Amino acid sequence: MISKPHTKYIQSLQHKKLRDELNLFIAEGPKLVPELLKTGAFACKEVFAVKEWLEENEKLLRSHDSTSFNEVEFFELEKISALTTPNQVLAVFEKRSPVVDIETKGSITLVLDTIQDPGNMGTILRIADWFGIRHLVCSVGSADIYNPKVVQGTMGSLGRVNVLYTDLVTWLQQNKGVKVYAASLQGKGLSSFGKLKEGIIIIGNEAHGISDEVMQLVNEKITIPRIGEAESLNAAVATGIILSHVV
Amino acid sequence: MISKPHTKYIQSLQHKKLRDELNLFIAEGPKLVPELLKTGAFACKEVFAVKEWLEENEKLLRSHDSTSFNEVEFFELEKISALTTPNQVLAVFEKRSPVVDIETKGSITLVLDTIQDPGNMGTILRIADWFGIRHLVCSVGSADIYNPKVVQGTMGSLGRVNVLYTDLVTWLQQNKGVKVYAASLQGKGLSSFGKLKEGIIIIGNEAHGISDEVMQLVNEKITIPRIGEAESLNAAVATGIILSHVV
Repeated sequence: MISKPHTKYIQSLQHKKLRDELNLFIAEGPKLVPELLKTGAFACKEVFAVKEWLEENEKLLRSHDSTSFNEVEFFELEKISALTTPNQVLAVFEKRSPVVDIETKGSITLVLDTIQDPGNMGTILRIADWFGIRHLVCSVGSADIYNPKVVQGTMGSLGRVNVLYTDLVTWLQQNKGVKVYAASLQGKGLSSFGKLKEGIIIIGNEAHGISDEVMQLVNEKITIPRIGEAESLNAAVATGIILSHVV
Repeated sequence: MISKPHTKYIQSLQHKKLRDELNLFIAEGPKLVPELLKTGAFACKEVFAVKEWLEENEKLLRSHDSTSFNEVEFFELEKISALTTPNQVLAVFEKRSPVVDIETKGSITLVLDTIQDPGNMGTILRIADWFGIRHLVCSVGSADIYNPKVVQGTMGSLGRVNVLYTDLVTWLQQNKGVKVYAASLQGKGLSSFGKLKEGIIIIGNEAHGISDEVMQLVNEKITIPRIGEAESLNAAVATGIILSHVV
C-alpha cells in the first residue's frame, strides 16, 4: 500500500519544478524500466510494480539491492502513473549530474533551438542515439528531457546521450572553431553535403524555426529538398533525415 | 449559440463510427482551416469561429458561399473542440469519396501496415506530401486519416495524398508487377539503393513491424544503418529517412 503523502510525492514528479528540486524523475512500463535499470545510467530509488512483474524480474531485482521494490495493486499504479494506461511498473530514478561542458571537436553535436513538444524531444533523443550522436545541446526553452512524456518516448536512449541546457548564443560563441549547420527551408540541398566528421547541427522550433540571434552564428544552411507541396516537415523527422545523410 | 443537439453531433465526429456514418470530419485552428478551405479538396459544411477570426477571413468566407459560417463564443468552441486548447475556429468538412484503386506503375507508393498512432499517421501523410508521394495504401487496422489528431497533424496535406484502406496481402498480390520494398532492421543498407522511379515501400507497425504474411510478398528489405545503440526509430522518422534517400 502506498501512503497518501507518498502518492502525492510521486505525482509531483510530473512537474518540472519538483523534479528539479528533488533531482528525481519517473519512468514506466515493462519495457522501459528494465532497460533503464540495465543501462545503469541512473540510480534507481524505488520501484512500484504489480506482483506478476516482480515475479518475472526477480533476477533484475537481486542485482539492484539498494533499490526499494514495492508490490502494488493496479489501482495504486493508476494513481501514481503519468500514463493514460499504466502498465505493470513505475520506477523513480535519480537524474544524472547536469552536463556542464561538451566537447565539439572531432564529432557531431546536435543542437535544439526550443523544441517544445515532449514527443518530438523523446523521438529526437532516440534518433541521436541511433546515429551515435553523444552530445545534445538544448536552449533553455526546450522541453525537459525528464518530462514523463519525453522519458517514455526515448525508449531507454535517455542514458546514452549527454544533454546540456544552455544559452545557445553564448555556447555557440564559445565553440567558434567548429562549423555550424542549420536545418532551414532556404539553404543548400542535402545532397550537396558529404558525410561530416565534425560539426554542430541546429534544429529549430516546431513553428518558428531557428531564432534570428542563433541564425546569425550559422555557417551553412541545410535544406531537405521538397518534391511535393507539404508546407513543412515535423522537427524530429527533419532531424532524422539530415543525420541519415551527413553521419 | 450552438444548440445542445448540434453540439453533441459535432462532438460525435470524434468517433470513427459516426464519422463513417455521417461521412464528415472536423478540422481546427486558424492555420489548418483556411488551408483546407483553400485546397478545395473537401466540401466544407459549416464553420464555427470567434468574431475576430470571421472578421479577419471575410474574403475567404465570401468565396465559400455554400458553407454556413457561425459566430460563436470561446466557451462554445471549447465544447465542440477535440483539442485541449481550442483555437479560434472549427470546421466540419465532408470526407472525400473513398479511393478504390491506385496506379502503382511508374511511381512510388507508400504502404502502411497497421500504423496505429494518430500522431504518426498525420506526420507520415505530411512526409508523403513533402516527397511528392500521391498514393498511400493502409491496412484496415491502421489509424483513420479523419481522426481529429491525424487531421491536425497533417497540416493540410490531407487533401493532397490519396489514401486507400484495404487488405494488404490481397492488394500486394494484385500489384505483383511492381517491386516491393520493406523497412526492416535486417535488410540491406539504405545506401545500396539508388533513387527509385517505381516501387512499393512498406512501413510496419510501431511495435510489431511488418506482419509475416505481408513480409512474404516483399522483394527487398531496406535497413537504416544504426551507428549508436537505440533499439529502434520512430515509424514516421524511418519513413522520412527512407523516402529522402530513394525518392
